[in-house]
Amino acid sequence: MQQIKSYIEQNKQRMLDELFELLRFPSVSADPKYKSDVLKTADYVAQKLRDAGADNVEVCETAGYPVVYGEKIINPAKPTVLVYGHYDVQPADPLELWETPPFEPTIRDNRIYARGACDDKGQFYMHVKAFELMMQTGTLACNIKFMIEGEEEVGSDNLGPFVQVNKDRLKADVILISDTAMISMKHPSLETGLRGLSYLEVEVTGPNRDLHSGVYGGAVANPATILAKMIASLHDDNNHITIPGFYNDVAELSEAERMALNNAPYSEEEYKADLGINELWGEKGYSTFERTGTRPTLEVNGIWGGYIGEGAKTVLPSKAHAKISMRLVPNQISATITKFFTDHFLRIAPPYVKVKVTPHHGGEPVVTPTDSVAYRAAQKAIAESFGKEPIPTRGGGSIPIVALFEAELGIKTVLMGFGLDSDNLHSPNEKYDVYNYYKGIETIPLFYKYFDELSA
Amino acid sequence: MQQIKSYIEQNKQRMLDELFELLRFPSVSADPKYKSDVLKTADYVAQKLRDAGADNVEVCETAGYPVVYGEKIINPAKPTVLVYGHYDVQPADPLELWETPPFEPTIRDNRIYARGACDDKGQFYMHVKAFELMMQTGTLACNIKFMIEGEEEVGSDNLGPFVQVNKDRLKADVILISDTAMISMKHPSLETGLRGLSYLEVEVTGPNRDLHSGVYGGAVANPATILAKMIASLHDDNNHITIPGFYNDVAELSEAERMALNNAPYSEEEYKADLGINELWGEKGYSTFERTGTRPTLEVNGIWGGYIGEGAKTVLPSKAHAKISMRLVPNQISATITKFFTDHFLRIAPPYVKVKVTPHHGGEPVVTPTDSVAYRAAQKAIAESFGKEPIPTRGGGSIPIVALFEAELGIKTVLMGFGLDSDNLHSPNEKYDVYNYYKGIETIPLFYKYFDELSA
Repeated sequence: MQQIKSYIEQNKQRMLDELFELLRFPSVSADPKYKSDVLKTADYVAQKLRDAGADNVEVCETAGYPVVYGEKIINPAKPTVLVYGHYDVQPADPLELWETPPFEPTIRDNRIYARGACDDKGQFYMHVKAFELMMQTGTLACNIKFMIEGEEEVGSDNLGPFVQVNKDRLKADVILISDTAMISMKHPSLETGLRGLSYLEVEVTGPNRDLHSGVYGGAVANPATILAKMIASLHDDNNHITIPGFYNDVAELSEAERMALNNAPYSEEEYKADLGINELWGEKGYSTFERTGTRPTLEVNGIWGGYIGEGAKTVLPSKAHAKISMRLVPNQISATITKFFTDHFLRIAPPYVKVKVTPHHGGEPVVTPTDSVAYRAAQKAIAESFGKEPIPTRGGGSIPIVALFEAELGIKTVLMGFGLDSDNLHSPNEKYDVYNYYKGIETIPLFYKYFDELSA
Repeated sequence: MQQIKSYIEQNKQRMLDELFELLRFPSVSADPKYKSDVLKTADYVAQKLRDAGADNVEVCETAGYPVVYGEKIINPAKPTVLVYGHYDVQPADPLELWETPPFEPTIRDNRIYARGACDDKGQFYMHVKAFELMMQTGTLACNIKFMIEGEEEVGSDNLGPFVQVNKDRLKADVILISDTAMISMKHPSLETGLRGLSYLEVEVTGPNRDLHSGVYGGAVANPATILAKMIASLHDDNNHITIPGFYNDVAELSEAERMALNNAPYSEEEYKADLGINELWGEKGYSTFERTGTRPTLEVNGIWGGYIGEGAKTVLPSKAHAKISMRLVPNQISATITKFFTDHFLRIAPPYVKVKVTPHHGGEPVVTPTDSVAYRAAQKAIAESFGKEPIPTRGGGSIPIVALFEAELGIKTVLMGFGLDSDNLHSPNEKYDVYNYYKGIETIPLFYKYFDELSA
């Protein structure tokens, strides 16, 4: 442990500088205009893996953005850890809400502000630096493989095929991912589940052109009004989702599980104050942790139609659109939910509009075991570096690929995230605490130590 | 009449070229970035009035865009016609839907395609050319005054003050406006009413920042979903507007008026085919003409919130917005309806969001008399040039200033419009038929002739 701390101490600044360099790449996978930046990011990650001591480093082509692979096999008899992360980031808009530019990392009160600071550049790069540390201190106790992709924020469409054709190369005993959050640094936690996702875009078309709202208003259906009515109907008065069959496969938690979940430290007042809201909202009969961790949801991620420029335009729009995503829980199946939504949305479309539903992407929910060797290794690592046992929690986010790894590679995952819910993931002013960055680099080597010991 | 036709014949091309020059100015009053273009347009109009023979032409400063004034007093004993029009135009977006650029007027199958071709450059410029014609042929039978403003499309906020301080200069016996439509060239008509307007913008705020829809989704109200629910609640199942008090002052038509209105030629099949819709929508118990001409409406002119760029972003937005306008009928009062809407919208806001309502602009509805000398003069002029008596109709649009003229100047208005509902006002590919342009220039001098005769 002393060895770890002193190595970090001696290389503190460089480890931060390298992360900053990584954060300066605007690797937004959703927007084609950043294509060359995303590709440059992949090359940078590959170079850093080589520098840290990885062998067989390769920027692996896919139908989309490449997957960066690298490995260090110290002894075939030792357990193997497959580290997964993603070098792509969410779009940064609305840009005007950033206090400092999203791709010019800045430190304010010991926090790194930048798009990707936490999700996931700051978190996956801890593993690159922890790997360097273990190589330099000769303490690498397991074989290690890196698989850093560039399409997580757009659904990882091409990682499935990549995994299928690289099954041998990806053989491992556990997949280790830092792309989730802890309750707080005072209350370290380990996520034991992730929600799945079904993301769609809907288009409602009324008249074949924008119309003068005076000449036609009152006689022709307004697609924005109709879309509003359709969206409004998707939740009932208890905020249950009204799509037929939506809850069919939802696994209800046992009373014990609910108790455990709700025992995690939580202050509704602090939660509301942080978000600046007066009242919480959600599905009747469930707590906040249950709502975000164990219940499926439906959110409007974006809505637009008609004139949205400055000033006033008296138009009856031809079209209105919305991006809608649903978070799924065990044992919902993404494709099934996508079909349920599509069928329902088309069914409730009134005759005076035309409705189109286009699926974007999806992913399956997962629950990770809490009795595995890997989970216990993570527990011990955190207990040692934080001086406290981690609390098991359910994450509300989605890493669609986790379910795929289990299906394709037959490997379970450990979600050892060092982020915080307040890190503004997917929001303006995304940040990652400098403390958490170093704490992760300090904790990760302990995981390898205990994973090796407990596997013996 | 022969004299009129031959003058038009001899000057056909020039009259079109001048309109094209006028249409090339992108005089979008709603968008500040066009400010200098709007101002240039005013100067062009002033120059053309001078060229046509107007005296005391002036580009009159206001708190906003200037009003262009010009006059020709031939004989104080003669009746005076005050011509109103506007040189500003609606925004042209969505640009990608225009077949040819909005500010590069183009003729296709004898139609002039350009923003403002009909609303209102093409229509008010007919009056400038008809005035030139009467001057050149020595047939001007009345005194004439022009008042061409530049803020009609944004509510004419500064025309009220202008009219108040220019009461003497604007003294007249009738206001003549061409900014409305006929049923068709086969069925010439005269609008006898206009709807009023109340235009507002609403903002719904949930959390104080965009959130990750996985981390927070299900526990925090989504402002886009809430806005959809609020908008959806503004119409009941019969498409009546649910705002308390909204219909209090609505004047119901007599059976006779309804009959007259519904006797106007109308084919529901053609109406639907033109708009590409399968079914009409509207307030239960009323016909299309009643819905657009005699009933108040509420339309979403624009809605936006969250991520509306390419691809997918799993965000729970902080804010959602909508531009909402209501068309008013006698005897609704714009300010009252604005207050009713605002009070209602704030009242129905659930406690987990904050709601802001900002009024944009408004205007009062009007009904013009059909027994006045001026109306009969317009009837005779149209009957002579079209060979058919005009059908009285109720227009669905708004020219807020008409009610103000009546209140401030005590002058009634004649709405002698030559447009068509299919001219795509406020839409991409706005057009004005070349035939209608010349037909207007031909009809207007006849109005002066008969207005003079009937006033005697």
